Amino acid sequence: MKYPNKIKKKKNISQNSVFSFKNKGDTLEYDLNLSNHYYIQHDIAHIYKKPTPIKIVDIDQKNSLITKAFFQTPSTTDYNGIYRNMYIDFEAKETASNTSFALANIHKHQIDHLIKIKEHGGIAFLIIQFNNLNKTYILTIDDYVEFINNNDRKSIPIKYFDAKAHLVSYNLHPRIDYLSIIDELYFEGSKNEKENT
Amino acid sequence: MKYPNKIKKKKNISQNSVFSFKNKGDTLEYDLNLSNHYYIQHDIAHIYKKPTPIKIVDIDQKNSLITKAFFQTPSTTDYNGIYRNMYIDFEAKETASNTSFALANIHKHQIDHLIKIKEHGGIAFLIIQFNNLNKTYILTIDDYVEFINNNDRKSIPIKYFDAKAHLVSYNLHPRIDYLSIIDELYFEGSKNEKENT
Repeated sequence: MKYPNKIKKKKNISQNSVFSFKNKGDTLEYDLNLSNHYYIQHDIAHIYKKPTPIKIVDIDQKNSLITKAFFQTPSTTDYNGIYRNMYIDFEAKETASNTSFALANIHKHQIDHLIKIKEHGGIAFLIIQFNNLNKTYILTIDDYVEFINNNDRKSIPIKYFDAKAHLVSYNLHPRIDYLSIIDELYFEGSKNEKENT
Repeated sequence: MKYPNKIKKKKNISQNSVFSFKNKGDTLEYDLNLSNHYYIQHDIAHIYKKPTPIKIVDIDQKNSLITKAFFQTPSTTDYNGIYRNMYIDFEAKETASNTSFALANIHKHQIDHLIKIKEHGGIAFLIIQFNNLNKTYILTIDDYVEFINNNDRKSIPIKYFDAKAHLVSYNLHPRIDYLSIIDELYFEGSKNEKENT
């Protein structure tokens, strides 16, 4: 009697922790960090999440301890780095909606930044996860801008993602293999097939 | 009697604040941020300083206020971005020494990162400022590694900088025109002369 009970209890705790983790809205960030770590460890790409900017108000100088600080709005996007000689830059967002992605989720200055990156020869896109649909898409900055320019809606319907965006597959390693989509979109093939780009 | 005294006092305060600012070791960071802002405003390059990573220990959830946190060691370098289609990545350091730059100023994992960036087709270098000499150099990661491989010293003498590194000029705008050195080193000319690289 004792042993099965223990197992059951353990399972519940595990489920709870997954649930609360998901609710925090950072499963995508966690998975992307795992993926980037895999890419770095295998010397495939060197892409990092930038630290969240903090406005420091008070410091305990003696102990180098921050005692009062606020979160700030990032000036650009969350992720950048290098892949196959190219500068790569993207923002990643999750939504609980099953039908659309609200434009308000991304700051205008972040979109302006991604447009600039594209103009300067970089690879710029969004990774957008529909949590409840279990779907993660790559939407290029061009396709995002095309939607904005041709619609008055305040959100991008899931149909637009199905038509224009690129579904990312989940694996064990790397967790989210978003660079395989980048291979197809910007290099017309995998790294091994076409190295001399 | 009152007016001149006030002026004198004001002047002293101003000198003190400049002095303490310099002592904090962030004049280079300040000047680089001004320069990067200039480059961004003129759409020349999009290079940013990454926020300092913070380990958050306690948060006042109601007010989104961080009440206890520590500074962390950056996982990579301080600056990265895009210039003339190229990924660019560098670390910037100041020294009070007049004779050499101590290798201990830069973490090994930061050097390893810059080597990787170079291997993946990016532009990777160090900006090193000798505060008392009023000199700021760009040292490519290749020349840094060459020194390490051929010397047992724990610091790079100023002579090596004079021989191998590239002196950066100071202007009003941009304050530190480090991209003009990058033009010479990696593009064999200014942006206007050779756009189609």
